[in-house]
Amino acid sequence: MSEILATVGEFGLIDRIHSLLREEGIQLPEVALGIGDDAACLTPRPGYELLVTCDAIVEGRHYLPETISPRDLGRRAMTLNISDIGAMGGMPRFALVSLGLKGETPVHDVEDMYRGFMDELNPLDAAVVGGNLTKSGDRAFIDITLIGEVEPVTRVCRSGARPGDAILVTGYPGQSAAGLEILLKGKCPGIPMEHPVVRAYLRPFHRAREGRAIAKTGYVTAMIDTSDGFPGDLGHICRSSCVGAELWEAKFPLGGELQRAALELKRDSLDLFLGESDDYELIITCSQDRVNLIKKVLASLGPLPVSEVGKITQNEGEMVLIRKNESRDKLTPMGWDHFRE
Amino acid sequence: MSEILATVGEFGLIDRIHSLLREEGIQLPEVALGIGDDAACLTPRPGYELLVTCDAIVEGRHYLPETISPRDLGRRAMTLNISDIGAMGGMPRFALVSLGLKGETPVHDVEDMYRGFMDELNPLDAAVVGGNLTKSGDRAFIDITLIGEVEPVTRVCRSGARPGDAILVTGYPGQSAAGLEILLKGKCPGIPMEHPVVRAYLRPFHRAREGRAIAKTGYVTAMIDTSDGFPGDLGHICRSSCVGAELWEAKFPLGGELQRAALELKRDSLDLFLGESDDYELIITCSQDRVNLIKKVLASLGPLPVSEVGKITQNEGEMVLIRKNESRDKLTPMGWDHFRE
Repeated sequence: MSEILATVGEFGLIDRIHSLLREEGIQLPEVALGIGDDAACLTPRPGYELLVTCDAIVEGRHYLPETISPRDLGRRAMTLNISDIGAMGGMPRFALVSLGLKGETPVHDVEDMYRGFMDELNPLDAAVVGGNLTKSGDRAFIDITLIGEVEPVTRVCRSGARPGDAILVTGYPGQSAAGLEILLKGKCPGIPMEHPVVRAYLRPFHRAREGRAIAKTGYVTAMIDTSDGFPGDLGHICRSSCVGAELWEAKFPLGGELQRAALELKRDSLDLFLGESDDYELIITCSQDRVNLIKKVLASLGPLPVSEVGKITQNEGEMVLIRKNESRDKLTPMGWDHFRE
Repeated sequence: MSEILATVGEFGLIDRIHSLLREEGIQLPEVALGIGDDAACLTPRPGYELLVTCDAIVEGRHYLPETISPRDLGRRAMTLNISDIGAMGGMPRFALVSLGLKGETPVHDVEDMYRGFMDELNPLDAAVVGGNLTKSGDRAFIDITLIGEVEPVTRVCRSGARPGDAILVTGYPGQSAAGLEILLKGKCPGIPMEHPVVRAYLRPFHRAREGRAIAKTGYVTAMIDTSDGFPGDLGHICRSSCVGAELWEAKFPLGGELQRAALELKRDSLDLFLGESDDYELIITCSQDRVNLIKKVLASLGPLPVSEVGKITQNEGEMVLIRKNESRDKLTPMGWDHFRE
């Protein structure tokens, strides 16, 4: 029988996690003091600003334990934080993991979750340096604070988009929503990891390397990750930059697996692309004459598709969709809202 | 009727909190970018290390909503994080607040909780710079990551206690446990804020200023706050420092309100002092010839009682209690353990 938290206790679990991080995690010289004191102690690198982000996921709201393995859950929770640092052009460095867990949770599951964190952090030379453990209510939660570093000249905000700028998007936003829908319909037995959009939902990629590489060109005017869905996140850029956007349906990346999943779900792939979906792709704005350069930098890192899907306009807060038949629709930027259902 | 989260929504609530922090919070020049982008952006001060701590409190486990006002809850949640930074000799600077809330929560309550955060942060020239909002399960949670700064030479760890060092403790650990017990017995109608130990539980003080002042002397060999109860936390020092401790019952700070509360509860004040209790007092070790200096520095900051309650021994992991009748008892350092019940 596998050990559970209620039997090893909080301090037993801390010891186990500590050993695991020592054996399988990255040891950073900047960490003067990690887990095991009142606070972790870090030495910031001169010349860098710190980027600090925090994202929590709650059982039953952001993930379904019956459809995701503890290791993938760990990866996913870390990926969404890494994505936020990457969308500002930064490098993730130090993570604090705060877990709210149930007493009946197997210790092995918690260790696997930490392996998932390290799957994402180790290749980026980043590490878990602290955190907190507590008992949750009926739903477990994973709350991660991630600290990154960025050179002031490299940092990209949401607020720099200018009228006339091109709007680019990586990958296929909407895949994650399609994957979730397939999981929720429970059409496939077990966890259908072989289904590409289900995989996109359960094992999303962040674009932190890509975000940083293009930020370093100095030509990205605004950037954000698509964690609230494409229009929701583009809406955040428009709002912060006091601009609007014109989007071209004909250029949307609706092909490939998204299209196939839409057929399977009897959904319109356009709706999936424009709906709420927690992919971790990048929305990028830059002046028209830098589009090719940005695409070239992205291509140098791997075969990630990039689509130019529209342009920034001066019509503050207005997002217009130009359909294939040239009719114009107003788009309402709705993102995930955790309190409205 | 008061507005609730389900009607204003996540983004509406973020706007409200953002305005509140702008109007009533401290604006820090080191914050290049606060709430409203993917990550907050901070400029660390040259010559300082960063201290990063993270503590979550869960409704029904760490607090009872019916016995604490939202503003006091905010204070309490922030105090326990400030206490961790102070116990290392640092200054709190930047807080990230991650809230798991229920849809029926009044917006006003959330605003009051933020006022509680600011009650604690503003006087220390610290600010909330980011965070996360999500919907919780049956229990709300408040998870705070606090970033502080400390000069490398000032930082005090748990691991520096040496055999022969004096063990000092501030205030009256155990009061908080007594206050909680009175609340749980529900003997007093409403929230009996006038009861000193109930007040100690609901509105604890941190000793961050004191911790920093004595750390700056360079003579504190180890320090920790008493969030797990006095023996539990002293046990952390012993374990990290590879030492033991000898404690003198006759010198324990069992007087004042703790004594009166013990009588009222028909409890032994010694048990309250030695039990689990989340006060945020300091346990300090220093060499015998520095005790007076440390006491003098503490006295210069206000009328905080300090008791010399024992000494560090070389008997690794052994904590011995010398009773008033000179008999010797072994003490088991048990702290709060969230998974054992």
